[in-house]
Amino acid sequence: MREPLSRDPKVLLGEATTGNRAALARLLTMIERGGDQSRTVASLAYASDPPYTVGLTGAPGAGKSTLTDRLITEVRTGWGSVDDGPHEPIDQVAVLAIDPSSPFTGGAILGDRIRMQEHATDPTVYIRSMATRGHLGGLSLAVPDAVRLLGAAGMPVVLVETVGVGQMEVEIASASDTTVVVINPGWGDSMQANKAGLLEIADLFVINKADRPGVREARRDLEQMLDLSQLGEWRPPIVETIAQDGVGVDEMWRAVGEHRAHLMSSERLVPRRSNRLAEELRRVLSARLAEQVEQVAEGRAFQDQVAELVAGRTDPYTAAEVLLT
Amino acid sequence: MREPLSRDPKVLLGEATTGNRAALARLLTMIERGGDQSRTVASLAYASDPPYTVGLTGAPGAGKSTLTDRLITEVRTGWGSVDDGPHEPIDQVAVLAIDPSSPFTGGAILGDRIRMQEHATDPTVYIRSMATRGHLGGLSLAVPDAVRLLGAAGMPVVLVETVGVGQMEVEIASASDTTVVVINPGWGDSMQANKAGLLEIADLFVINKADRPGVREARRDLEQMLDLSQLGEWRPPIVETIAQDGVGVDEMWRAVGEHRAHLMSSERLVPRRSNRLAEELRRVLSARLAEQVEQVAEGRAFQDQVAELVAGRTDPYTAAEVLLT
Repeated sequence: MREPLSRDPKVLLGEATTGNRAALARLLTMIERGGDQSRTVASLAYASDPPYTVGLTGAPGAGKSTLTDRLITEVRTGWGSVDDGPHEPIDQVAVLAIDPSSPFTGGAILGDRIRMQEHATDPTVYIRSMATRGHLGGLSLAVPDAVRLLGAAGMPVVLVETVGVGQMEVEIASASDTTVVVINPGWGDSMQANKAGLLEIADLFVINKADRPGVREARRDLEQMLDLSQLGEWRPPIVETIAQDGVGVDEMWRAVGEHRAHLMSSERLVPRRSNRLAEELRRVLSARLAEQVEQVAEGRAFQDQVAELVAGRTDPYTAAEVLLT
Repeated sequence: MREPLSRDPKVLLGEATTGNRAALARLLTMIERGGDQSRTVASLAYASDPPYTVGLTGAPGAGKSTLTDRLITEVRTGWGSVDDGPHEPIDQVAVLAIDPSSPFTGGAILGDRIRMQEHATDPTVYIRSMATRGHLGGLSLAVPDAVRLLGAAGMPVVLVETVGVGQMEVEIASASDTTVVVINPGWGDSMQANKAGLLEIADLFVINKADRPGVREARRDLEQMLDLSQLGEWRPPIVETIAQDGVGVDEMWRAVGEHRAHLMSSERLVPRRSNRLAEELRRVLSARLAEQVEQVAEGRAFQDQVAELVAGRTDPYTAAEVLLT
């Protein structure tokens, strides 16, 4: 019989690094729940080096889940010869599936349960969907915490997959080391990507379902839009895949590796991560101050100021100053 | 020759109450610009009783501008016999046209210039479009300030007209004593209103362009949606207008008066305005705290904390706490 699981984040993280998935799951639940416990988890998570994160975004139905599933296998082939750094094997991979519209379902949505079964015999894969039950600032803060936790638990690569292209999802996917934008062939899909602001965040384009008509046109549209964009040193490559049959996924992974090698050779990885941390810190500050507003608005002094406003004895700016000092 | 206009808000308000439109315009520009001067204007504006505000919202092209223009004439007929209170004549009316998508154009967009010409000979009408150039919290705070200022300058009624049904526009239009939702006949328009959250905020529905086919269906759809809604004591009436020809605008104004009489007889006007002031105060608090975040993020201490984060010596929550204490 197994010993009951600890509730101490430090003990749990120790367990998680030795492969205890229940311990890892409990830590992730703590992050979702927010509060003091999640703070302790965060302080442990951020003490370790971050994992390499690959974000996948694109319209619902573009085939991101299938692509991610196929990618899991490719990841284990390692970074390949494009990487000038040490070729450590990638022995584990984690997937975070983000669906802001999905109600909380106990840590795993139906799709993930099915996917988990598929990978159930594989101890080197960890798939988890994220929801928030109380984390300060919601998913846009809980996801980076979860990514860092997975890194601290020994995962060298984390794939972050969003269901749609809502503002929060795009924000989350773009907060990655390599951001993959998935589109399908067919008129207008690349235009839609442009409209959703996906062009700006893409390090790599994948035209999935490339066995359908319109691939050439989609590629041409993307190339044209890239020609019109102000690109830096890196021009996002365009890869064609048929995720259902596994076609092109090796090339996609190679392109991810090339982007990583570019980031490392041009010393862009550290500034990129530093900017991300600054953005996260800014979000935590905003969330904390929003909490303050709520606290103030629930207080007696707030009601007093509203009464003064109703009586015409103050204005909202003076009242706010009174409340904030 | 005219004396040059003062720059002192108090002097300007004195001038504005005697009908000096240049003085009123300068005060409104001060509000748009934000900063210390707008604070002074606000403290003067909120000392007077608020005017009666009628908000008009609906999809672009529904005919809100034409309806507002026609309403200007009706307003001067007074509140009519439906009102149990004292029948003060409505000798002046102000219109605030809100277009968040319009770039700042010096206080009046082209359409308003044309409309102003039309009313140029009428000293009892004041039309102004609002933009923001720096007001804390943007239009959703600048508009209530402007409404109060118009009240302080002696306008008993202010019509607030939005161009579209963006989130901010709906928010602004709903922060009125009577909120009018304008739709057109035709399949789906009432459904769209439902989707945009207009059903919840409407005190009165206007089916404008009622000479077009589909009026009966639009009315039936609205009635059905109202039947399914949880209504209070007031069931929003549905009025048909052909604003272009002035048809039905008298009935519309009568319905506004009936809603006002309902608010006054059931003693709902004061709580409604009190809730609005509480919401405004909450927004000022949020805006002030957002300013604080920006100030913190520009400081040296913020950069130091980011460096600590990059080095893995802290986490975003601990860093935020350091910065906020």
